[in-house]
Amino acid sequence: MKAIIVHPPGAGVSIEDVNINGNDPGIKILENGICGTDREIVNGELSAATSLNGFLVLGHEALGILEEDTKNLRKGDLVMPINRRGCGRCLNCMLGRPDFCETGEQLEAGISGMHGFMREYINDDERYLVKVPDVIRDIAIMAQPLADLEKSIEEMISIQKRLHWPCIDGTYNCRKVLITGTGTIGILFAMLLKTYGFSVYISNKREPNDIESKIFDELSVKYKNLSNKIDESFDAIIEASGSGTDVIERTLPLLKNNGFYGIFGFEKTGTLNLTSEFLQGIVYKSINITGLINGQKPHMEMAMNHLIQWKKQFPKTTSMMITEKVSINNERRLKEVLSKKRPGEIKIKIIW
Amino acid sequence: MKAIIVHPPGAGVSIEDVNINGNDPGIKILENGICGTDREIVNGELSAATSLNGFLVLGHEALGILEEDTKNLRKGDLVMPINRRGCGRCLNCMLGRPDFCETGEQLEAGISGMHGFMREYINDDERYLVKVPDVIRDIAIMAQPLADLEKSIEEMISIQKRLHWPCIDGTYNCRKVLITGTGTIGILFAMLLKTYGFSVYISNKREPNDIESKIFDELSVKYKNLSNKIDESFDAIIEASGSGTDVIERTLPLLKNNGFYGIFGFEKTGTLNLTSEFLQGIVYKSINITGLINGQKPHMEMAMNHLIQWKKQFPKTTSMMITEKVSINNERRLKEVLSKKRPGEIKIKIIW
Amino acid sequence: MKAIIVHPPGAGVSIEDVNINGNDPGIKILENGICGTDREIVNGELSAATSLNGFLVLGHEALGILEEDTKNLRKGDLVMPINRRGCGRCLNCMLGRPDFCETGEQLEAGISGMHGFMREYINDDERYLVKVPDVIRDIAIMAQPLADLEKSIEEMISIQKRLHWPCIDGTYNCRKVLITGTGTIGILFAMLLKTYGFSVYISNKREPNDIESKIFDELSVKYKNLSNKIDESFDAIIEASGSGTDVIERTLPLLKNNGFYGIFGFEKTGTLNLTSEFLQGIVYKSINITGLINGQKPHMEMAMNHLIQWKKQFPKTTSMMITEKVSINNERRLKEVLSKKRPGEIKIKIIW
Amino acid sequence: MKAIIVHPPGAGVSIEDVNINGNDPGIKILENGICGTDREIVNGELSAATSLNGFLVLGHEALGILEEDTKNLRKGDLVMPINRRGCGRCLNCMLGRPDFCETGEQLEAGISGMHGFMREYINDDERYLVKVPDVIRDIAIMAQPLADLEKSIEEMISIQKRLHWPCIDGTYNCRKVLITGTGTIGILFAMLLKTYGFSVYISNKREPNDIESKIFDELSVKYKNLSNKIDESFDAIIEASGSGTDVIERTLPLLKNNGFYGIFGFEKTGTLNLTSEFLQGIVYKSINITGLINGQKPHMEMAMNHLIQWKKQFPKTTSMMITEKVSINNERRLKEVLSKKRPGEIKIKIIW
Repeated sequence: MKAIIVHPPGAGVSIEDVNINGNDPGIKILENGICGTDREIVNGELSAATSLNGFLVLGHEALGILEEDTKNLRKGDLVMPINRRGCGRCLNCMLGRPDFCETGEQLEAGISGMHGFMREYINDDERYLVKVPDVIRDIAIMAQPLADLEKSIEEMISIQKRLHWPCIDGTYNCRKVLITGTGTIGILFAMLLKTYGFSVYISNKREPNDIESKIFDELSVKYKNLSNKIDESFDAIIEASGSGTDVIERTLPLLKNNGFYGIFGFEKTGTLNLTSEFLQGIVYKSINITGLINGQKPHMEMAMNHLIQWKKQFPKTTSMMITEKVSINNERRLKEVLSKKRPGEIKIKIIW
Repeated sequence: MKAIIVHPPGAGVSIEDVNINGNDPGIKILENGICGTDREIVNGELSAATSLNGFLVLGHEALGILEEDTKNLRKGDLVMPINRRGCGRCLNCMLGRPDFCETGEQLEAGISGMHGFMREYINDDERYLVKVPDVIRDIAIMAQPLADLEKSIEEMISIQKRLHWPCIDGTYNCRKVLITGTGTIGILFAMLLKTYGFSVYISNKREPNDIESKIFDELSVKYKNLSNKIDESFDAIIEASGSGTDVIERTLPLLKNNGFYGIFGFEKTGTLNLTSEFLQGIVYKSINITGLINGQKPHMEMAMNHLIQWKKQFPKTTSMMITEKVSINNERRLKEVLSKKRPGEIKIKIIW
Repeated sequence: MKAIIVHPPGAGVSIEDVNINGNDPGIKILENGICGTDREIVNGELSAATSLNGFLVLGHEALGILEEDTKNLRKGDLVMPINRRGCGRCLNCMLGRPDFCETGEQLEAGISGMHGFMREYINDDERYLVKVPDVIRDIAIMAQPLADLEKSIEEMISIQKRLHWPCIDGTYNCRKVLITGTGTIGILFAMLLKTYGFSVYISNKREPNDIESKIFDELSVKYKNLSNKIDESFDAIIEASGSGTDVIERTLPLLKNNGFYGIFGFEKTGTLNLTSEFLQGIVYKSINITGLINGQKPHMEMAMNHLIQWKKQFPKTTSMMITEKVSINNERRLKEVLSKKRPGEIKIKIIW
Repeated sequence: MKAIIVHPPGAGVSIEDVNINGNDPGIKILENGICGTDREIVNGELSAATSLNGFLVLGHEALGILEEDTKNLRKGDLVMPINRRGCGRCLNCMLGRPDFCETGEQLEAGISGMHGFMREYINDDERYLVKVPDVIRDIAIMAQPLADLEKSIEEMISIQKRLHWPCIDGTYNCRKVLITGTGTIGILFAMLLKTYGFSVYISNKREPNDIESKIFDELSVKYKNLSNKIDESFDAIIEASGSGTDVIERTLPLLKNNGFYGIFGFEKTGTLNLTSEFLQGIVYKSINITGLINGQKPHMEMAMNHLIQWKKQFPKTTSMMITEKVSINNERRLKEVLSKKRPGEIKIKIIW
């Protein structure tokens, strides 16, 4: 079958015929999403990526159609495969939660230990498949990145049970959360935190552009320009920009007592310097800093629910999410979008 | 202003002019929902209902439009008031959770201690108001009963944290929940439990009628006829029929080890007999039986999210929910619907 | 080796030579505790008990001395084996929690599926062994029944997280717990609940005897005679008498709003009748009823901690716990104590 | 009455007669503990300390004897007052948990907003008093610092509920915790974590001295010299040295996946530098870093339980805890111990 092939740790990408057999039920791939990690692999920049017998099928975001009945799913069901699989040895993996793999030997489709989903069809056990309601077929591919955010907010709320975090009315309405970064991830976080009832602020180092303003308006989230002085403080901050340690240095002091600082972005540059005096403040203020990564099947299911809701509730924002569709037959354009982020891009889909 | 007036503990209902002043922001009432409790009051059957200075405004389900800006809400926002208010003395009420009032002295709008919402306008603090997205204006009134279910399932999941309840894939897909009763509450429970990822079964003492079959089909829930022998067992059972203790007697033995039995319905008749041998089984099997009641503001907010989602996901079911609208000016019909449940009724709304 | 042998479902007990080989590290048995379940098996009254190849070694409470080093334990360490082992198939058993076995196929030493501990030595994996501090060697055998209570209170507290259960000072001091039954289990529950900070009441159907009065005085727990009218209500009730359903019928109405009713005893007689009106009260008051059973290794470890504490804190009570020691060589007396509870007995130990 | 007086922000300490009236029940002070914070105030080094009307009674660790009956306590009971009091405005303070005060306006006895306990008697509401069992009168003063640790470990366990943290046998036996620092706090943490069932490692930048070796031997904790290369990794690390950011820099990389890093010490010097690459590791490994501070009444009660247990279980270690008693009449020595830590000091008590 046709597949998008890479050869990590080397750079390069090609469309080739491969022969990968599987005994699990077959899923015909309808579309794949492209994310930054795919591009790092294509550009030979992700040291964690590994080939299997000399090559690797790329891709960890996929929507497909099931080709036979399984115990709980039916032939013709739209499905998405989850992209991380357990190490088979630690308790958290045995519980279906390789996001908390203890050994670090989990498999990552299209990255390490397991071929990815950018191919004509895959074979997979229904345990790893999430049913996709037809009504969100157009934006379902967003469920893959969204699942990571679902897990992140679930984890934040779980961690904050160390104290009484709900407000005087039992909701989270009084809790102010600042998101740094206005890309796909920042916007998805904004929708998710609004849905949880938080008071949401989103930020970047500049004024918002027109499209962003329209989105933030539809979502009823407030905007903060991080280049200006910020006089407010926040109950939680989600670092979703990944733009560098300076963002953390700028925002960490904005936390209130008992504040939660979630690092979701992978900082590319810089060094975060925390003085002993600042560390004393972390103690006095009971601050919590947590690395946030990866959602699993339960989070993918939550993501489906939220995408259905948001499509109805935030039609403008959700309709702007898929910024380009590239046919698998358009090899030239495919190589372009797999190599470099496009201006204004939110999510690009490959159509099979 | 015009209001629907009752005189508990006496029977009867009338539309009258009342003078109730409030200093809180004003809300113009657009519509009210009618539920069984309203009818019990109208028929003089609810001993818990009390008059305030000789009368009581009925109604605890209301949709209104805010008439001035508040701190977090804007003039023109659609809002719903929550119906239970704290006793002012116990910790759970201070935390915005009078659903767990410890003194039993909480106020219930339109039932005891506080006038209800069936009147031209009310005054209320924004702390007790939940914003309603315009997109669900037509079915928003369902959020009031749904909030009770949101709280119930939240409580079930909280209680089951006594063990490891998620499945091997981290979801609740493998957990089978049986709902007894196919009325509004049963159907709402089915949608909610599906949304949480449970494997859902709904039941009654007869075969489902055509409308029910269509609904259960859209929701992908399975049907059980309680008059037949049931060979399956369940991880949780939600008694939502309120039809009598015989339903509990019939279904309690169907629980698996570690099972959760939630009583949501108010049984009208009968006596539940539990032999010492059966009670031993409750111990051996670590069974849990819990009375489920009342949602608060956080649950009303969850209900809004779910109504938006379901309107998109389950259009047939949601479109069948409002079975009749009665104008406040149609006094004859109003008195009828306030006195007696109509055949095929799901939810009847009063329109102002 | 010498062993105490039974032949369930038949009655009778004998001391015989048996040949049971094991490859796990050896533990020389120093003493066994006798409990009611042992007597039910000896008297042929426990239908759940099963022979293995024609006989069963009795006993699920044992203190032994380890005969070789293991990874975490040393030769010469005092150890106690846990008595329930997982089914090998369900998640809770895989997590070391067969107290929540989902299949009902767990093994119970000396009862079903696994020979018991009343023999000269056993072989066991260190995973199932709990280290016993030398300082409580004399009362360590109490850790086996106590572990079940540790699990029960842990479960109660976990379940009550459905609401805000701590008091205004962050403790449980204001929460009143009534224990029914003044036997070993009742007294151990009293010590445990005091240690957790609860306000503890213990009860029986009569006035307390002298020994009981001294114990309740040392523990600072209050006494209630269930034959008298009780004007107080309680936040939790633990049924530990197992004397019959009438105790439950008598005490269930004493629960406050949000109350927890834990059934620990195995009711021998009677039928509990709950009227529909009473069941409505369970709903209105958010009552929770839970069957409490079995502690595992973590609870056995907690039990060790508490026994050390209580030996220092409650010297009178702890010194009264072991009411008789019977040598394995005193066959006549052994058969007596294995057949029938002795007057005034708390715990009888067999000494090897 | 006689009191130990300071004048923050100025340095100096004196014993003087003061007139402080209170209407709450009286407690005659028997002894006070001295801690590092007291010395910082005496030496004019704690900017957070404030006088009340020109002076401040020092002291936040006290053991006293109640002089009249209260609702739950009796005249003659040994009691300890808790040292932090709520701001009166935020939810966590209203719940008796000013350790999570949201406004930062909590009162600290002997530090800010409230006179301390180094005086002949105090008046206090029983809500702030913890009963002390007579059996630990000699070491009870340790309950004050220990309460902070009880809260810290409770918080760690609460936070780690974000994943499945117990081991395959349901205990924490497989979870390795490294404590940095071998002072009072380090040793108390070691006892506490052993009691919870963790595998405990304690460390310093040098080899342990003889007394330390004896203590670690009695506690069965392993020792690590941080000046040597450490090849092991840990599930949790508790920074209890407060010696400088270099200890954090040295140990943070030793965390396993899902690791918890608790900062309990107040780092005096240095700057912690976290490269973007290291921060990526925090994300990939789901690391959690939390500032740990202050226990409240529930933790003081837990501390009492553990002190009783440890006095029996670890007699050597507990008997070494009180390294000096200084009479209130020995003014010269009092001023010395209030100004400077003594060599080999664990806890110094002032005797009234």
